[in-house]
Amino acid sequence: MSFSPLIKELIDALQCLPGVGPKSAQRMALQLLERDRNAGRRLAGVLAQATEHVLRCSRCRTLTENELCDICQNPKRDASLLCVVETPADVMAVEQAGGYRGLYFVLLGHLSPIDGIGPEDIGIDQLLTQVQADGVAEVILATNPTVEGEATAYFITERLQQMNVTASRIAHGVPLGGELEYVDGGTLAHAFSGRKIVEKH
Amino acid sequence: MSFSPLIKELIDALQCLPGVGPKSAQRMALQLLERDRNAGRRLAGVLAQATEHVLRCSRCRTLTENELCDICQNPKRDASLLCVVETPADVMAVEQAGGYRGLYFVLLGHLSPIDGIGPEDIGIDQLLTQVQADGVAEVILATNPTVEGEATAYFITERLQQMNVTASRIAHGVPLGGELEYVDGGTLAHAFSGRKIVEKH
Repeated sequence: MSFSPLIKELIDALQCLPGVGPKSAQRMALQLLERDRNAGRRLAGVLAQATEHVLRCSRCRTLTENELCDICQNPKRDASLLCVVETPADVMAVEQAGGYRGLYFVLLGHLSPIDGIGPEDIGIDQLLTQVQADGVAEVILATNPTVEGEATAYFITERLQQMNVTASRIAHGVPLGGELEYVDGGTLAHAFSGRKIVEKH
Repeated sequence: MSFSPLIKELIDALQCLPGVGPKSAQRMALQLLERDRNAGRRLAGVLAQATEHVLRCSRCRTLTENELCDICQNPKRDASLLCVVETPADVMAVEQAGGYRGLYFVLLGHLSPIDGIGPEDIGIDQLLTQVQADGVAEVILATNPTVEGEATAYFITERLQQMNVTASRIAHGVPLGGELEYVDGGTLAHAFSGRKIVEKH
């Protein structure tokens, strides 16, 4: 015995969500159907709309339903600075940190030859064309500090240097508020090799 | 700065799911939009269908898109036994345990005067009418061993006894495979007060 076909299909479809297995999918399906039909209807509608209308910003490739995203549309942003990140969530993280007033370029991924993801799949050609056309002065590479993220940053840096454009990489080291005791070895080694001489007053 | 309106709405709508907060909703929305549009489209379709077509079985009140659920439709089930549970998930749990061949009645809740949930909201009238009409010999009360579940079982038992119908409650005690050391005090006290004399061979 099991649930009726439509409920089974719903439990199955919910498992496409990250971190949702059979048990939580069952709990979600039953809660929506038992108690929260309106929320379920709304989610179905919004999801259908979003999968249909959300596209990529034609300039920075982040997800948006407009031709240009809010940041690219904003004339107050400094167009001579371009920050390269892997995902739209990274854009939000940098925005929430505050302080950065330039524009972004979202790769929507990273170089990964094993998975067959090459430079053209993450829009590196578009990035380089744009840097040249817009006269960008500095490109800040803020890809993740993983093997793939580092390789992607290295690849882009090389191309930019051929074009005589300044490339910079965000600093990596011990996070603020962290305790040395609990920082992993790789980060600590990185923090030592990247140490800065303290200037005399 | 934040996500575009449609993405924000999707992140918001996803939070109707149990156990999903702002961070996981953002992760889910971006994963669906970045990598898994087809899964998103499918989920939207199935969810719209299910919220529209899944109703209650007219006999046992479980969730189903048919007039009668599979169990109520099955002529091999023993109609003289009726098991009362709180939710459709409980029906599945009893079915998966195996061994029970009777029918079910799903309350879709429990008595809770604080939340304004009375007997008519969980179909107790329908239950009693059905018990009489179908000549049910025994009603097994399998509501949860919580305060509300116990109160609901007690309320139904009283009504059934007025009608001279046998009511039974599932056994509560130490779970199989459990270690006494780790069983909570309430369960252990229950197991002691509900002890059975071992028959002599």
